[in-house]
Amino acid sequence: MIEQQCSNMSGHELDCIFNPESVAVVGVSTRPQGLQGTGTIFLESLVRGNFKGKIYPINPKGGRILGLKVYPSIIDVPEPVDYAICCISSLRVVPFVQDCALKGLKAVHIFSSGFSETGSEEGKRLEEELSSLARRSGIRIIGPNCLGPYHPKSGLSFSSSFPSESGPVAFVSQSGAFCNYLVPAMAQRGVRFSKVLSYGNACDVNECDLLEYLAADENTRVIAAYIEGVKDGERFKRVLRKTAEAKPVIVLKVGVAESGARAVASHTGALAGLDEAWDALLRQAGAIRVHSLEELIDMVVTFSRLRLPSGRRTSVLGIGGAGAVVAADDCTNAGLIVPGFPSEVQNKLRQLTASGGIGMGLSNPVDLSDQGWDILRDCVKAILDYDGIDLLILQLPIGAFPSPYQDMMFPHIKRLAYAFVQAYNESNKSMSAVITNFLSSAKDSEVALECEQVCCEAGLPVYHSLSNAARAIARFLDYHDYKARGGKQSD
Amino acid sequence: MIEQQCSNMSGHELDCIFNPESVAVVGVSTRPQGLQGTGTIFLESLVRGNFKGKIYPINPKGGRILGLKVYPSIIDVPEPVDYAICCISSLRVVPFVQDCALKGLKAVHIFSSGFSETGSEEGKRLEEELSSLARRSGIRIIGPNCLGPYHPKSGLSFSSSFPSESGPVAFVSQSGAFCNYLVPAMAQRGVRFSKVLSYGNACDVNECDLLEYLAADENTRVIAAYIEGVKDGERFKRVLRKTAEAKPVIVLKVGVAESGARAVASHTGALAGLDEAWDALLRQAGAIRVHSLEELIDMVVTFSRLRLPSGRRTSVLGIGGAGAVVAADDCTNAGLIVPGFPSEVQNKLRQLTASGGIGMGLSNPVDLSDQGWDILRDCVKAILDYDGIDLLILQLPIGAFPSPYQDMMFPHIKRLAYAFVQAYNESNKSMSAVITNFLSSAKDSEVALECEQVCCEAGLPVYHSLSNAARAIARFLDYHDYKARGGKQSD
Repeated sequence: MIEQQCSNMSGHELDCIFNPESVAVVGVSTRPQGLQGTGTIFLESLVRGNFKGKIYPINPKGGRILGLKVYPSIIDVPEPVDYAICCISSLRVVPFVQDCALKGLKAVHIFSSGFSETGSEEGKRLEEELSSLARRSGIRIIGPNCLGPYHPKSGLSFSSSFPSESGPVAFVSQSGAFCNYLVPAMAQRGVRFSKVLSYGNACDVNECDLLEYLAADENTRVIAAYIEGVKDGERFKRVLRKTAEAKPVIVLKVGVAESGARAVASHTGALAGLDEAWDALLRQAGAIRVHSLEELIDMVVTFSRLRLPSGRRTSVLGIGGAGAVVAADDCTNAGLIVPGFPSEVQNKLRQLTASGGIGMGLSNPVDLSDQGWDILRDCVKAILDYDGIDLLILQLPIGAFPSPYQDMMFPHIKRLAYAFVQAYNESNKSMSAVITNFLSSAKDSEVALECEQVCCEAGLPVYHSLSNAARAIARFLDYHDYKARGGKQSD
Repeated sequence: MIEQQCSNMSGHELDCIFNPESVAVVGVSTRPQGLQGTGTIFLESLVRGNFKGKIYPINPKGGRILGLKVYPSIIDVPEPVDYAICCISSLRVVPFVQDCALKGLKAVHIFSSGFSETGSEEGKRLEEELSSLARRSGIRIIGPNCLGPYHPKSGLSFSSSFPSESGPVAFVSQSGAFCNYLVPAMAQRGVRFSKVLSYGNACDVNECDLLEYLAADENTRVIAAYIEGVKDGERFKRVLRKTAEAKPVIVLKVGVAESGARAVASHTGALAGLDEAWDALLRQAGAIRVHSLEELIDMVVTFSRLRLPSGRRTSVLGIGGAGAVVAADDCTNAGLIVPGFPSEVQNKLRQLTASGGIGMGLSNPVDLSDQGWDILRDCVKAILDYDGIDLLILQLPIGAFPSPYQDMMFPHIKRLAYAFVQAYNESNKSMSAVITNFLSSAKDSEVALECEQVCCEAGLPVYHSLSNAARAIARFLDYHDYKARGGKQSD
């Protein structure tokens, strides 16, 4: 049983999860699909996706599916198998994994639910059996109750909407549903992934194993994690600190307040204590804590895509004077600096703008409201040329104009996006774009999506609100200051 | 010159701004329009909108425009005129307002810019002349540099995209651009307006006059204000306190941090002091401070549309277990309570759900992920029937499902929205809907917009993020607690 090995492994035992040479899928069926028959969806992802290895569908009835021979059991597969995806009823999972161990598989991903998450004694017992089986046999189990790995490089994926290119971000998520939100949502913002794992109940492979693995993974530059609970707090603390020393770790820890809410009626104070404990743990480890999906996305976008600004001096270039005032507030509140421009920069901008510009519109923030549209690129360049600015943020408010102007503005807004992208290609400065869709009409959305795509494809980090962008960028700078202090928290 | 009066006035002198019987527009032209010729846009809003009074276009060349006779000057109009909209070069504004005063107009709205906002001596001098003219003649001036009034009842509007129906919200905004964002953005969320005024540089009519007026206005139940600066801090404090005693006043004060940012290089600490001073002023007055456009919208939606919950006990009904965990965190962090359901409620839900339900999915938050879709209305009803819940929030994540399921989910999501609306119509409990569009693809947007529209038309408050909804609702409850304490701040 020991003869076969995942040959494209770097040597780490978890490599087998991401780089199997052959995959068996159990729980496939040719029935028309409702929410059942999920095995077939996984199978389709392998067949129609880019998976280069061998694929073995398993079903006691045999036959063929998607052009592949179906084997009655994993034992019946005539060749060695590295890895299995298991989508069968919870009661049949333990015998299946026993067969996998017998057959010499390295790892099994268990999609099936019906284990400890049900809260039932039976579910807990079944999961305990799985854990014990993993310990005894050495087979690594992912899950149960999870979507498993997405690894663009080897063509493993659980959704056809995930990008096929790789990138620097690893994401580990206890929740499968959130992988299904967050991977495409981050992908739309230009993020690409090294490895993603939805790991569910973590009866064997858990967040600690994954963090250790990713800390050493040379294809991963940024790690994001969605964590509901950890079983071994002490190990987690140790591993997290070590991982965060190696690379940025962005953590969304949830379930804290929820359990607090359950307890609050009978035990006031539990909530605050718990949340503070997590805050302290993450801060001391040097991890970056986020509190919402939106913030997780913004931080991942920032850490994987923003050029490190040389300082906090920020210029905002936008359309609309009031937007500029709020933008200055947002940046300053977040901890960035919005210096006024010296007269030579203002004069340059005044010469460029058709109408001669108005008041604060040519200082910083710059308001291009009533200016000619052909001089946009020169305005962007004039700001980038000024040494007193470390970072330039473009603010594109889609749907923010009154209806007689709205349609007239769309081409200008697009032109501004293209001019900004061109300036970005020619500059080394840190730049980002905020594309806000105020009204979400179909036309607004179309323009917003086009601008977002243009900016993302050029490598720009894109945000959906200026205050969120400013906060994420300020935290990014905080992180680098912390690293520059040798990993010591400031007062 | 004193013979005519705005006859449909309630007696307050500012009524003339919102209820003129006749309006003159100066700055109209038949030239093809760019960003110039704005007088014609105002004229069109009156002609094509619902304005019932008389309209007099003014242009030295005379002729006809939009079927109306053009008068060479305001003096030449043969009948009395209540009100004028002025869209001419700043240098010609003072003589025009002098003519208006001679003609006996009650009020002039000056759209033209080129006054104190330019920072130039000439601009400041011109604005000072306007102020002095207003004081001497008694004519009320709105602006300069603003979009003026939107008053659905009398058909006055500066945008054809604003609703023609009235509602309980008044909005005063120093910025015209923000009126153009915020009125349609709030309207899309179901908010309707009593009176809106973009008041610009406030050379005469200012935020204090408006707050006093709206405090007494019987058609206004909630006041929102966007303020950049006030000239008379003491009066503002006094008036704000009095207004906030009468009705909720939601204030977005901006420009604080921006001026702080300008000063921060040479004078550290100025920023914090200023911002804290504003915080204290607004808190002591009993106003509700918001810090972003999104928060302003959420608070206005809440104050104008949410049924006051009898307490903080909140249930969240959603799709997806991880969403439920985060929802519980968001609610608890915001200051709401998310109690677990007693077994009888859980059993009721278990009986209703086809698959028997899973674990925490049937406690609170309720996760309807894998349940049958025909029992949605009964599930909503089962939760509403439970006395231990004061508020029910529906969470509809659009675009949050993996691509094989996505299209299949849309009809279910829509059905859930309709089921929720039906339950709302039959219940007296406080309810709201959170419609999150994760990916903003064209199809996602379409489904999100349909769900939003259905919920808004039924009278439900709708939000775009659960954490923002929870925060707005918690602040709404804080406000009512504050009122119940007789307007005293809690510790």
